[in-house]
Amino acid sequence: MADAEEIEMFGRMMIALDILESSQEFGRMIPEVRSNMVYAKASAKTRADVLAIDGRITVVSGMPRACGRPRFGASSHMARLVIELRKTDPSVRAGIDFANTPELSAWLESYCARKGWAFAMINRAGEPESIRAEEEASMPWKAAAVIRAAGGRVPKIFYENGAVGKEPVSVIVGPEPIGIAREIAEIAREYRGTTR
Amino acid sequence: MADAEEIEMFGRMMIALDILESSQEFGRMIPEVRSNMVYAKASAKTRADVLAIDGRITVVSGMPRACGRPRFGASSHMARLVIELRKTDPSVRAGIDFANTPELSAWLESYCARKGWAFAMINRAGEPESIRAEEEASMPWKAAAVIRAAGGRVPKIFYENGAVGKEPVSVIVGPEPIGIAREIAEIAREYRGTTR
Amino acid sequence: MADAEEIEMFGRMMIALDILESSQEFGRMIPEVRSNMVYAKASAKTRADVLAIDGRITVVSGMPRACGRPRFGASSHMARLVIELRKTDPSVRAGIDFANTPELSAWLESYCARKGWAFAMINRAGEPESIRAEEEASMPWKAAAVIRAAGGRVPKIFYENGAVGKEPVSVIVGPEPIGIAREIAEIAREYRGTTR
Amino acid sequence: MADAEEIEMFGRMMIALDILESSQEFGRMIPEVRSNMVYAKASAKTRADVLAIDGRITVVSGMPRACGRPRFGASSHMARLVIELRKTDPSVRAGIDFANTPELSAWLESYCARKGWAFAMINRAGEPESIRAEEEASMPWKAAAVIRAAGGRVPKIFYENGAVGKEPVSVIVGPEPIGIAREIAEIAREYRGTTR
Repeated sequence: MADAEEIEMFGRMMIALDILESSQEFGRMIPEVRSNMVYAKASAKTRADVLAIDGRITVVSGMPRACGRPRFGASSHMARLVIELRKTDPSVRAGIDFANTPELSAWLESYCARKGWAFAMINRAGEPESIRAEEEASMPWKAAAVIRAAGGRVPKIFYENGAVGKEPVSVIVGPEPIGIAREIAEIAREYRGTTR
Repeated sequence: MADAEEIEMFGRMMIALDILESSQEFGRMIPEVRSNMVYAKASAKTRADVLAIDGRITVVSGMPRACGRPRFGASSHMARLVIELRKTDPSVRAGIDFANTPELSAWLESYCARKGWAFAMINRAGEPESIRAEEEASMPWKAAAVIRAAGGRVPKIFYENGAVGKEPVSVIVGPEPIGIAREIAEIAREYRGTTR
Repeated sequence: MADAEEIEMFGRMMIALDILESSQEFGRMIPEVRSNMVYAKASAKTRADVLAIDGRITVVSGMPRACGRPRFGASSHMARLVIELRKTDPSVRAGIDFANTPELSAWLESYCARKGWAFAMINRAGEPESIRAEEEASMPWKAAAVIRAAGGRVPKIFYENGAVGKEPVSVIVGPEPIGIAREIAEIAREYRGTTR
Repeated sequence: MADAEEIEMFGRMMIALDILESSQEFGRMIPEVRSNMVYAKASAKTRADVLAIDGRITVVSGMPRACGRPRFGASSHMARLVIELRKTDPSVRAGIDFANTPELSAWLESYCARKGWAFAMINRAGEPESIRAEEEASMPWKAAAVIRAAGGRVPKIFYENGAVGKEPVSVIVGPEPIGIAREIAEIAREYRGTTR
């Protein structure tokens, strides 16, 4: 039942969660829709194969707090996004979404340039109306747009500018959650330094 | 320190929270931005005078779950909305925000008609650009638009249709939280019955 | 359903809980069996009429933490103890149990003398074997022993020295929880000062 | 920082915790002092090398609930017990403590016989007074007594009968937490069947 892959996945998620919950600066990057952190099995086909934080990560007393536990199937949007992206780059198995503002996007673009990370923006105004109405159809379009915007690969960080009725969010992806938790905590700390 | 008003406010919030957390159907009405429940002091002037759920109310294992505790100052948006509305109707001290879809809005309109409750919609597309950019300035405009749309009074339920980058939400208000928790739980149950 | 007494009781419990959870020193006074805080209705006859912390108050990351919420019926032992004591002194409606060591007991005795509070110890070695075996029968014996030890009244603070298989605990009682939360937080702070 | 052993340990603890928290019957086996579940590193020398549930496992709304998260160093008593036992049997790395009553002990003895598991009881009345007073000195004595009672090996399940001021508890040990969580959940289910 609990195979070696699942054991490793739960372990990495818990350690990553500790990193996120210890970062007050990350708390300031949690969007209105709250953040989630997802981690897909190597063979993930559906959201049931993707571990995520049940109840998402919110902010309590100024600090990030996972409301529930990691659970397979606990994410819909982020889980399906990672599944789509993996069709192009199977090394991508984990992701975290976070806030997006024009100031942060501009800063992230230069931060990614310094790091040598691919960075991309997609404009959901370009999304066909027929697709936007249907949440399921929307994800393949979005993943394809992200990859196209990054020149055919999955970028390390990307964001979408806001559509009507949708809060814009940024996303960071990577092979597993401990690494991206450290990366986003560092981003939050460095960005915070520029805005004090 | 803990005066009679604060004691009563914490008590009503906890009982209201029990009602919300026991309603699986309400869980289906929690928007992406999560719900909050707020309760303003009779003399509330700023968000520090408004009790709210720290970390908002999210969904864990399919049930509504308050991530943190009631705390004065824990809400920004909903707290300021209630403070603005009270300038017109001081009997309004509590509110809960919940999901909004075209189907739910249509159903709510006829539900409110049955109940004899005022119901209103505001269109944030009508909001002047100069105001929209400034979150602080936005709230008085929004409250005024809600009251104008309801013919000069504070409606029982209202919603805004989505602006760019903003998830549309519905709001129910009333004099104290136990009553509106019961009302929203009944709404969730009845609406759920129509969509099964 | 939610009458004025219940609203006030939940409100006082939440404010008292905030006081306890903010006291690191109280965390050092939580016994192995964990602390509970109970609050009986004015007409309480059974444990169902007594509000208590579901899951008791434990220590997480060095700070006191209520695991669950206040709930009627959530305590057995402390609830029945307060119900028995109220037969002699109906003004006693609330109580908190905490650790007991010989050093603390000696300190508490002189602290109570300074405060003008009645203080008592009961020796469960004096409890008849026939009673000890039966948890239900044990409580009236215990309450009577406490009251007898304090000269016919309910003492402010009392403790039992340990029986076989029972961790000794101290208890502080009073008319409502905010007051005793402040009292135990002050005790914890002052006692901590003497043991550094 | 997060090495492969720690990742696996956190993963196994989380999966084990899910098993425990899903077992209502286990909830009825949680003692007054609450249960903990510990998991020692292969090279564990001190409690800082032992993962445990911060705040222990309590009962909320009738179900087992871990109050905090797994954290290295979160247990004192159970951590030191496992470290002592490992000096005789290094394969023992995990343990859970649970309730003890004369009825349960009698049932466990025959259950262990059926399973072919070593089972032992120690009598703390036999513990020298000089040792009992000193918590640190007490653990090696206790571990030695357990091993002696089981004929020179570490038994699968053991208990101590109560000393003055100490609640008697039972302990189950094994190589890692998922296995013992399943074992104790099965024990709780089967024992519950006999007492309905």
